[in-house]
Amino acid sequence: MTLAPALLLATAAGGEASVAHLLAALAAIFVGTKVLGELAQRFRQPAVLGELVAGVLLGGSVFGIVDASNPVISAMSEIGVILLLFEIGLETDVRSLMKVGGEATTVAMAGVILPFGAAMLATEALGLGHLPALVSGAALCATSVGISARVLSDLGMLDTTEGRVVLGAAVIDDIIGLVILAVVAGIVAGGSVSLSVVGRVAGVAVAFVVLAVVIGARVAPPLFRVAEKIRASGTLGLVAIAFAFLLGWLADMAGSAMIIGAFAGGVVLHDLPQAPELRESTTRIGSFFVPIFFASVGAAVNLRALMSGDALLVGGVLIVIGVAGKVLAGYVPWWFRGDKLLVGVAMVPRGEVGLIFAQMGLASGAINAGEFGAIMLMVLVTTFVTPPALGRRAVRVRRRAEDLGIDDLVAGASRSKET
Amino acid sequence: MTLAPALLLATAAGGEASVAHLLAALAAIFVGTKVLGELAQRFRQPAVLGELVAGVLLGGSVFGIVDASNPVISAMSEIGVILLLFEIGLETDVRSLMKVGGEATTVAMAGVILPFGAAMLATEALGLGHLPALVSGAALCATSVGISARVLSDLGMLDTTEGRVVLGAAVIDDIIGLVILAVVAGIVAGGSVSLSVVGRVAGVAVAFVVLAVVIGARVAPPLFRVAEKIRASGTLGLVAIAFAFLLGWLADMAGSAMIIGAFAGGVVLHDLPQAPELRESTTRIGSFFVPIFFASVGAAVNLRALMSGDALLVGGVLIVIGVAGKVLAGYVPWWFRGDKLLVGVAMVPRGEVGLIFAQMGLASGAINAGEFGAIMLMVLVTTFVTPPALGRRAVRVRRRAEDLGIDDLVAGASRSKET
Repeated sequence: MTLAPALLLATAAGGEASVAHLLAALAAIFVGTKVLGELAQRFRQPAVLGELVAGVLLGGSVFGIVDASNPVISAMSEIGVILLLFEIGLETDVRSLMKVGGEATTVAMAGVILPFGAAMLATEALGLGHLPALVSGAALCATSVGISARVLSDLGMLDTTEGRVVLGAAVIDDIIGLVILAVVAGIVAGGSVSLSVVGRVAGVAVAFVVLAVVIGARVAPPLFRVAEKIRASGTLGLVAIAFAFLLGWLADMAGSAMIIGAFAGGVVLHDLPQAPELRESTTRIGSFFVPIFFASVGAAVNLRALMSGDALLVGGVLIVIGVAGKVLAGYVPWWFRGDKLLVGVAMVPRGEVGLIFAQMGLASGAINAGEFGAIMLMVLVTTFVTPPALGRRAVRVRRRAEDLGIDDLVAGASRSKET
Repeated sequence: MTLAPALLLATAAGGEASVAHLLAALAAIFVGTKVLGELAQRFRQPAVLGELVAGVLLGGSVFGIVDASNPVISAMSEIGVILLLFEIGLETDVRSLMKVGGEATTVAMAGVILPFGAAMLATEALGLGHLPALVSGAALCATSVGISARVLSDLGMLDTTEGRVVLGAAVIDDIIGLVILAVVAGIVAGGSVSLSVVGRVAGVAVAFVVLAVVIGARVAPPLFRVAEKIRASGTLGLVAIAFAFLLGWLADMAGSAMIIGAFAGGVVLHDLPQAPELRESTTRIGSFFVPIFFASVGAAVNLRALMSGDALLVGGVLIVIGVAGKVLAGYVPWWFRGDKLLVGVAMVPRGEVGLIFAQMGLASGAINAGEFGAIMLMVLVTTFVTPPALGRRAVRVRRRAEDLGIDDLVAGASRSKET
């Protein structure tokens, strides 16, 4: 007599054995991402790097514990991205973006146009098709807000002029990245690359965000005033997540991307009096789902494909363009009086959005395993290279500031020395 | 051109459209359970009652938004039960159970044997098969710790002798319920009902719990001392959940039930210095998954089957036995000097474990939709009937205590008047 099907709640395909395996896979993901994330931080690298590596190790090319194509894992991984972009939205204050103004916008625009254009040209020159070139270019656009903010904060540089420009630009190019995501997703799904299509897709994405923000700003305050009257603990956070999910679903219905809906949902809730509690709850629930996303992305990496000649060549070209494009973008606002190189270097790390492009391209067949590997390599290297480079530049900027007696930079930089 | 597959992370069957629908279903579950839970509380009923009703409304027999047999929903619902029993384990202090001693154990044992035996006899007399009789009897065993503790706390009666006996007995009969669950699950999975089989299954379940607790008690403290060194926020909570999942998986491997593993995992962690933080984190993550469990259980209710003559007859019999069995059990420890009726009434509500039995029986084909409906009816009615009955008894006990000048009971009871 076997007792294996002890709790037969799963009536559909899969059943008990698969849920037990799911538990084991999730436990491995949680422990693996935390341990390797910590290890990465001990080596002064961002935790997300360790989480990706954990996924690579758990995935098919090494231990084979996590199958990224399992429907439950992949649904939970999608909930992870959706919650991540909802969190980023919750942190995004539209007005303070307006204030950092010209410099941030210029850096963001240049930091999208330069690498995107260069990558399109270079990859087509290397003989890649139009679609892989498009996906590669798109993957190079968005700086990882999480990574750059974390690195800057670790260095005590968030409160400097450079820090503010970087944060503003990173948030703006994340928004641009979301629009590009919708455009590229539309094209990958079968559209042609005519300007009218691009305009229409961007229009739908922007219109959805604008409508969501405008309508949401009227609906959210009374909604959360009502939700506050529900005494059960955790209600506010759960209603916020329901709000994000609902907007994700609406975005999908409207022909946009679910993560754009979730991001717009976060922006809408940013100013609510209940926002701090919503952020806290979302981060807690996100701490369960977001590692599943990073680990799944890592688990989808085919190490052999990553190490193939093609992936290394294309990956190398993408890395050069990715680093040079963002560093140059730091110099485009010529009137900026702070350290332009510091800004440029801080814009280099790519993260979530680049990985989303790679994953999307792979899943839809727009790119092959080698091209996926090349993008992964670019994301890994740009993420890996930034913290030490940024640290070295910060020390130099601090010394110069001390010589000139500029207090606020000294204060920021010296704080970094203590930590 | 359609943009629907905008984010093609889901490579397996299902894909984008199903994830968008999943988001909508989850949003409906979160809002529905919170709103109906609050409504139930306004009518002085436990929130869980409202959450079940929300599930019934969202399920196939009314709005059809939530499909409890969807593999992702059902996996998340299982994670919900697992986290719920992990939470209960985290609240269970083995030593304070020992202290409430004789009375609690007697009430628990009598409260399992009386309804189980009576239900087996009565349902077989009504012409049900051996398996449905077994499942029905098992579903009547376990008092819902959550419901009775919540009700007693709302009445300010948790700190009275009666309150302590009820809490102790409820926790003990939950443990007995878990063993019965493993036994019945084994039998339902194809074993015969011989005493040696029952003994072996119970032995495996008990041995697993004992081994898990003994080994876990040695492994957990150093494990969590190491986990504490990882600086990323939320690490401790996530490691705790990984611990619960790992024990659930081990329990499944050992031929026991996953929820027994999760419960044992909670008991092991109860005494850790980090326990308060683990409880907080688990409750937060649980606040996402547990409503999915209750809503799924509700969604599986077939209202037409519930209202069929058979379900009403069997359900009515189960209700009478369920109420009488637990109330009588309160009188079995004859030496107890507190109010025996209060204890008995407080033991009446059935919840999680009863629902798990019903779900398991239905999924494995051991019971039919009508018998499932009868058990649901019993769970709904016993849960529904307790709070007002307990309130009325509490007022009478308080008056008598005031007349006698028994201080601690007066203190407890008068606190209830203020709330």
